[in-house]
Amino acid sequence: MNILIGEKEYFKGIGQIKFEGPNSDNPLAFRYYDENQVVAGKTMKEHLRFAIAYWHSFCGDGSDPFGPGTHHYPWDVASDARQRAKDKADAAFEFITKIGAPYYCFHDVDAIDGHNDPKEFASRVEFISDIFAKKQADSGVKLLWGTANLFSNERYMNGASTNPNFEVLAHAGAQLKGAIDATIKLGGDGYVFWGGREGYMSLLNTNMKREREHFARMLHTCVEYARRNGFKGKFFIEPKPCEPTKHQYDYDAATVIGFLREFDLLSEFGLNLEVNHATLAGHTFAHECQVASDAGMLASIDANKGDYQNGWDTDQFPTDIYEWAEAMMIILKQGGLAGGGINFDAKRRRNSTDPADLFYAHIGGMDTIARALLIADKIQKHGEFDKLKAARYASFDSGKGADYVAGKLKLEDLFEIAVSVGEPAMLSGRQEYLENLLGRFV
Amino acid sequence: MNILIGEKEYFKGIGQIKFEGPNSDNPLAFRYYDENQVVAGKTMKEHLRFAIAYWHSFCGDGSDPFGPGTHHYPWDVASDARQRAKDKADAAFEFITKIGAPYYCFHDVDAIDGHNDPKEFASRVEFISDIFAKKQADSGVKLLWGTANLFSNERYMNGASTNPNFEVLAHAGAQLKGAIDATIKLGGDGYVFWGGREGYMSLLNTNMKREREHFARMLHTCVEYARRNGFKGKFFIEPKPCEPTKHQYDYDAATVIGFLREFDLLSEFGLNLEVNHATLAGHTFAHECQVASDAGMLASIDANKGDYQNGWDTDQFPTDIYEWAEAMMIILKQGGLAGGGINFDAKRRRNSTDPADLFYAHIGGMDTIARALLIADKIQKHGEFDKLKAARYASFDSGKGADYVAGKLKLEDLFEIAVSVGEPAMLSGRQEYLENLLGRFV
Amino acid sequence: MNILIGEKEYFKGIGQIKFEGPNSDNPLAFRYYDENQVVAGKTMKEHLRFAIAYWHSFCGDGSDPFGPGTHHYPWDVASDARQRAKDKADAAFEFITKIGAPYYCFHDVDAIDGHNDPKEFASRVEFISDIFAKKQADSGVKLLWGTANLFSNERYMNGASTNPNFEVLAHAGAQLKGAIDATIKLGGDGYVFWGGREGYMSLLNTNMKREREHFARMLHTCVEYARRNGFKGKFFIEPKPCEPTKHQYDYDAATVIGFLREFDLLSEFGLNLEVNHATLAGHTFAHECQVASDAGMLASIDANKGDYQNGWDTDQFPTDIYEWAEAMMIILKQGGLAGGGINFDAKRRRNSTDPADLFYAHIGGMDTIARALLIADKIQKHGEFDKLKAARYASFDSGKGADYVAGKLKLEDLFEIAVSVGEPAMLSGRQEYLENLLGRFV
Amino acid sequence: MNILIGEKEYFKGIGQIKFEGPNSDNPLAFRYYDENQVVAGKTMKEHLRFAIAYWHSFCGDGSDPFGPGTHHYPWDVASDARQRAKDKADAAFEFITKIGAPYYCFHDVDAIDGHNDPKEFASRVEFISDIFAKKQADSGVKLLWGTANLFSNERYMNGASTNPNFEVLAHAGAQLKGAIDATIKLGGDGYVFWGGREGYMSLLNTNMKREREHFARMLHTCVEYARRNGFKGKFFIEPKPCEPTKHQYDYDAATVIGFLREFDLLSEFGLNLEVNHATLAGHTFAHECQVASDAGMLASIDANKGDYQNGWDTDQFPTDIYEWAEAMMIILKQGGLAGGGINFDAKRRRNSTDPADLFYAHIGGMDTIARALLIADKIQKHGEFDKLKAARYASFDSGKGADYVAGKLKLEDLFEIAVSVGEPAMLSGRQEYLENLLGRFV
Ligand SMILES: [Co+2]
Ligand SMILES: [Co+2]
Ligand SMILES: [Co+2]
Ligand SMILES: [Co+2]
Ligand SMILES: [Co+2]
Ligand SMILES: [Co+2]
Ligand SMILES: [Co+2]
Ligand SMILES: [Co+2]
Repeated sequence: MNILIGEKEYFKGIGQIKFEGPNSDNPLAFRYYDENQVVAGKTMKEHLRFAIAYWHSFCGDGSDPFGPGTHHYPWDVASDARQRAKDKADAAFEFITKIGAPYYCFHDVDAIDGHNDPKEFASRVEFISDIFAKKQADSGVKLLWGTANLFSNERYMNGASTNPNFEVLAHAGAQLKGAIDATIKLGGDGYVFWGGREGYMSLLNTNMKREREHFARMLHTCVEYARRNGFKGKFFIEPKPCEPTKHQYDYDAATVIGFLREFDLLSEFGLNLEVNHATLAGHTFAHECQVASDAGMLASIDANKGDYQNGWDTDQFPTDIYEWAEAMMIILKQGGLAGGGINFDAKRRRNSTDPADLFYAHIGGMDTIARALLIADKIQKHGEFDKLKAARYASFDSGKGADYVAGKLKLEDLFEIAVSVGEPAMLSGRQEYLENLLGRFV
Repeated sequence: MNILIGEKEYFKGIGQIKFEGPNSDNPLAFRYYDENQVVAGKTMKEHLRFAIAYWHSFCGDGSDPFGPGTHHYPWDVASDARQRAKDKADAAFEFITKIGAPYYCFHDVDAIDGHNDPKEFASRVEFISDIFAKKQADSGVKLLWGTANLFSNERYMNGASTNPNFEVLAHAGAQLKGAIDATIKLGGDGYVFWGGREGYMSLLNTNMKREREHFARMLHTCVEYARRNGFKGKFFIEPKPCEPTKHQYDYDAATVIGFLREFDLLSEFGLNLEVNHATLAGHTFAHECQVASDAGMLASIDANKGDYQNGWDTDQFPTDIYEWAEAMMIILKQGGLAGGGINFDAKRRRNSTDPADLFYAHIGGMDTIARALLIADKIQKHGEFDKLKAARYASFDSGKGADYVAGKLKLEDLFEIAVSVGEPAMLSGRQEYLENLLGRFV
Repeated sequence: MNILIGEKEYFKGIGQIKFEGPNSDNPLAFRYYDENQVVAGKTMKEHLRFAIAYWHSFCGDGSDPFGPGTHHYPWDVASDARQRAKDKADAAFEFITKIGAPYYCFHDVDAIDGHNDPKEFASRVEFISDIFAKKQADSGVKLLWGTANLFSNERYMNGASTNPNFEVLAHAGAQLKGAIDATIKLGGDGYVFWGGREGYMSLLNTNMKREREHFARMLHTCVEYARRNGFKGKFFIEPKPCEPTKHQYDYDAATVIGFLREFDLLSEFGLNLEVNHATLAGHTFAHECQVASDAGMLASIDANKGDYQNGWDTDQFPTDIYEWAEAMMIILKQGGLAGGGINFDAKRRRNSTDPADLFYAHIGGMDTIARALLIADKIQKHGEFDKLKAARYASFDSGKGADYVAGKLKLEDLFEIAVSVGEPAMLSGRQEYLENLLGRFV
Repeated sequence: MNILIGEKEYFKGIGQIKFEGPNSDNPLAFRYYDENQVVAGKTMKEHLRFAIAYWHSFCGDGSDPFGPGTHHYPWDVASDARQRAKDKADAAFEFITKIGAPYYCFHDVDAIDGHNDPKEFASRVEFISDIFAKKQADSGVKLLWGTANLFSNERYMNGASTNPNFEVLAHAGAQLKGAIDATIKLGGDGYVFWGGREGYMSLLNTNMKREREHFARMLHTCVEYARRNGFKGKFFIEPKPCEPTKHQYDYDAATVIGFLREFDLLSEFGLNLEVNHATLAGHTFAHECQVASDAGMLASIDANKGDYQNGWDTDQFPTDIYEWAEAMMIILKQGGLAGGGINFDAKRRRNSTDPADLFYAHIGGMDTIARALLIADKIQKHGEFDKLKAARYASFDSGKGADYVAGKLKLEDLFEIAVSVGEPAMLSGRQEYLENLLGRFV
């Protein structure tokens, strides 16, 4: 990938980030992520399909509920919205090509300022997506997925597709149309729905049943529109349990899968799982991956890290090898992500104010995940985990156990079998043994 | 209801608990629960269908992970298992009739000690259920639901219906048969599945997909057996997110409903929601009630109270009027519980060692819920909540909003509508107003 | 109290909020808060000393991490900072006098925009505090406490008094001087320290020992300055465990008391306890009150309500009678708050966008607390709680128990006593009885 | 260390666990823990001072609140209490010497069954401690610390040293005397207080102030007794926030340090920090270590691992290199643990029922911690963390910053300095850089 500099260079003094191996002392080099290294039959680049998130990296200013932004971007100064968007795109593609990520992701309002007039908004999105198209062609960077931000505009304070007011829902539809159009134009591999305010603040004023039905209706409407207009990619739903809402309808993997099944949407959709959202929902990330994978729905990932002591979406960069090794074991087992990639939905800390911090943050994240891939591959090749797990369930592979699975036994049959087999042997779950086995590869 | 004393009286000095009204200073009287008071067309007794839990009240000895039991029961001293079971039944029906609860609930091993030989276990259950049948006839007390304890015996340490070893699963089946037989014999209104160890301790040794399939198969097997043998009641699943497992498959209402739909079990089942399990899952109790009610699955309740600061199933007795008033609003709205009742799955504190404490605890719980029913009824009659909520969604009742609901609009239509309506008015969610309105009735 | 309207009326159509009693259907009336009603020897007004928080009520725009503000204030439109501050003061005192709160509280930057030049900032604070002085005189409203906002300005991103850079600490000192000067001028009853960023984001870059020492030094410096300049009030520290920091040094009541004792600051300080901060720290509000009261440090309260399912400072308005009744029992027992009052550090929900919502919110909060005061007073007068608690510890009031308390017994003595008394009787903790007793008064 | 087999060998087929290095595939070998390897001037054995916990490893039967024990110990079958204790000691010292831990720890009732008669109980403890003395002499294994179990006996249901009934407190004193006597006899390096029920279940029945005073009095009484009888070791308090209590007075490191300071006990005590208790208190383990270390109180550690999704003391074996590397950085920096060691307060999972599981569990734990020690040593030698941290606070090392630290500046001085230095530069906290730096050594 060639570095793509726009009208001016924004990250001066930092060039292409290179792989230098685990022993490198260079904080601006990869120690594990070598895009060309072949692992389990594919290059790391093909496996991981890293994407840079436009919002955190080029828009997020470090503001939090207790103070305004600390990151002042030189690309965010022009007075004209279109010019500012163009400058930001220059900075974005410079960064993406310097860090060497093959993909990026964006919300409509990250790419360019929104506008209350749907026509002007659509025109703006067209303008910037034309620029993105050229940048993609010039750099080889591709769009992992696009999405519409249906939570920031004040009109969405009571929800977007779940707003009690149909007029607001219509505006959400207008925005969705623009974002889907742009995704199609840019050849996005996917389209993501994250329903930041699709939930409730209080049950006292909410008809949850109607709101969920309205939401499902919108998904059907979008799928129909996108397919009719040539979209070939996958649709993703990103679960999150709460924040900013009291409760978000797309709570976790199991809830979303249940929702999609209820409203006959399973076949068109996959899940985009975010690590921090698993944390907020009271699950491990591996759990969410397993639930999704078992349902054939583990499609894409928003990579970040939560804080186990604080209760909000801290969106830190990944650093935990264990968390990722366990997830990668599941992903490798299913043969890779189904249609998506790994997007860094992660932000530098508010007090990480050096431009280089954006590089350190992504390097750390990419290395963590690459290292986890190498670990998972070694585990897979070693084979003991698979062998032990298969043996553990062997009693269901044949004989009466298989009959049970096939639905051939009645409750009386089970009673008789229990009588005849007597008290079963106590079979250790061997958890500590397996934890040590995992530890051997970390 | 007449007090039913067995061979000896266990709760001497305490007679029938009577309703004395809110101003009573008598700690052994009801202040709100008047079983004959008519509320919204039914007596309180018919509405609430209170049940006493055999396990906590007559078996639970107050042990916890840091110390053995502190409650020493005079009915738990005979050396013979059948005699001990009989004595316990005497104590149980004495208490149930003195407190005036119309129902009770039990696990097989609460009623009588289990046995590793399925035939002996079945014979024991038959023995005690014959005694229960007579006690029911003598007292008028009825069985709300029965269940099998598939988590205490050491053989279930890796799960029961989800055990990786088919032999263990067969034993679970044997126990289920016995508990279902007893439930049918005793005319139970329902049969509950709470899968205490149906989950995992570690994903490293678990094939979650197979385990869930095995679990679904067992539910089908039980339904088939029960229907064939004349069971007319409802089957209930009781969600719980974890404890003793790291993760239990019946995590919360949404997860269970998704599971039942996936495995084509929805029509036979309802949910038995426990307050403390909502707390452990990160939900309000009202949330779980609403999710279940919206799906037509709010069938029965395990009444207790969690601790918002501690992270295990404290199973305290209900005291919070707010929590119950919000739940009762949902229950009244759907016309009452669908097939179940309100069972006190609650235990006295380990250090509540006076026999009278069992009465205080239940009186407090029954009064809390009765008071909540009165509040919900007043709110319903006042009607402002309903009116405001209906008005909030009125834009979907006709015109373009109704067209959207009916699936008649395409995404382009929404765009055009957004353009034509312009920026919608900001409509306050009025949460504080509604909280005050609720407060007015508490 | 007379309504104080400024150059224009901001809350048109809403007059003085009056007490109308529990049966009133008027959502703009008090049902429990009757400022003149005498309870336990003082009027409600004297007991509760309600204060309105400038920040949430007149500055907070409803923005959250996922969207900008939804509350657009007509007093926040003038282009000149001093004029805007003046308009805001008009609105504030109009609201405060209409709602009938005897006190208010503010941060320097709530009153008027801050400025990076300390002299200009000081001049601005002087300007607005002169206006406040006049408003106070005209209305009878008083200042409960003042404070400096040392967390919003980007320079405080690594802390203020705990910043690793002394220059930033100097700026914090400059702001503290201004805020203390204003508090003295306005006759504030107290001065609050809430150290929003006095903590760490990561231990990896933090010398916690030095930072805590620097913080203690700043408190000493402020006390010296304030006393030298005639401040007669109390200093308060407001504990909070985290947010926006990963960990805040003023974690909870016990931690702050330990800190003040360690650095010899106990005598000058009391605690300003916030309900939601207790929640975030994993405590009940009553727990924090009891810890503070036992140490003679329960001085003032920031009234609001957290969310037990979400993990951030939701700052909702109080609605829970139980939470407040338990706190009021402690406050009444210690003879009232020591030097402070009850400040509504609470905000309307982001989607509560009607001006009237600000009134509903405060009315609900004031009524909840007033009702809790009435309940606590009844409990106090009834006396059973006190009697039972005293009896429970009676064995330490005389005899060997009193000897133990007085330090007269050695370990061998305890051994001998244990031998001689034999196995003690099991004394029930009677928790359910006491919960029912509390419930009787709610 | 030589293997010490007693009357019979309990762990047949498993010999001395040896160090085989990171590449070993032997699950019964150490991959990192090499007791003779010198790290930072001491052997690993001297640094880590691993201890085996008698309770979990030789007494804990795997019971949990939902089921009885699954671990059936061949040393726990004799009918006589003294014989059973002797057999258990054989098993314990066999295991301790096979695993190669230099220390062990025990509660009185772990060593031998307690007895309600204090004299008989004392006699039993004397009996078993004589046996322990001989075992220590024969094997070279030493006692890290002793303690009394003041939470299991039903008489402690309302607390031990904080019990409202003085008679119960006297029994606690009797037990403390016996456990201290044994600790002195066995040359224990420390004596631990973990107050499992020293807290409250409900504030409604609790006088927290008196209870805390009684607790402090007991600590003084014990210190006086132990010193008078020749105890030279350290006293440790082990913080825990809750469980089995609603709230335990020794909540966390900061709370305990505050308590010890309040009651003038600081000089005699250090902290015994447990990883899982940090988790339950809402802290990272590194946080607790830093708080303790800054106060000179980081003395000993109970090694285990919590579960971030479940809310009780799961006491799993350590596996997380990050958690331990951060802790080891702090421990190395203070020159090692002050007086204590690292005790495995960890238990096999209930379903880990093979005898070998006890070995796997400890091997995994010891390797994790040994590896963390190696990492921390490398980080220390590399020096960049120290250098960066020192530089970050350099402005307080001289000039005005040092004057501030020395208390020479008044608030006006800070104001003038702020004016003169102008707006400070924004200095990045560099969190991601430092996380990567840490990751380089893991
Ligand atoms: Co995301
Ligand atoms: Co997120
Ligand atoms: Co239950
Ligand atoms: Co429960
Ligand atoms: Co506050
Ligand atoms: Co707050
Ligand atoms: Co411990
Ligand atoms: Co523990």
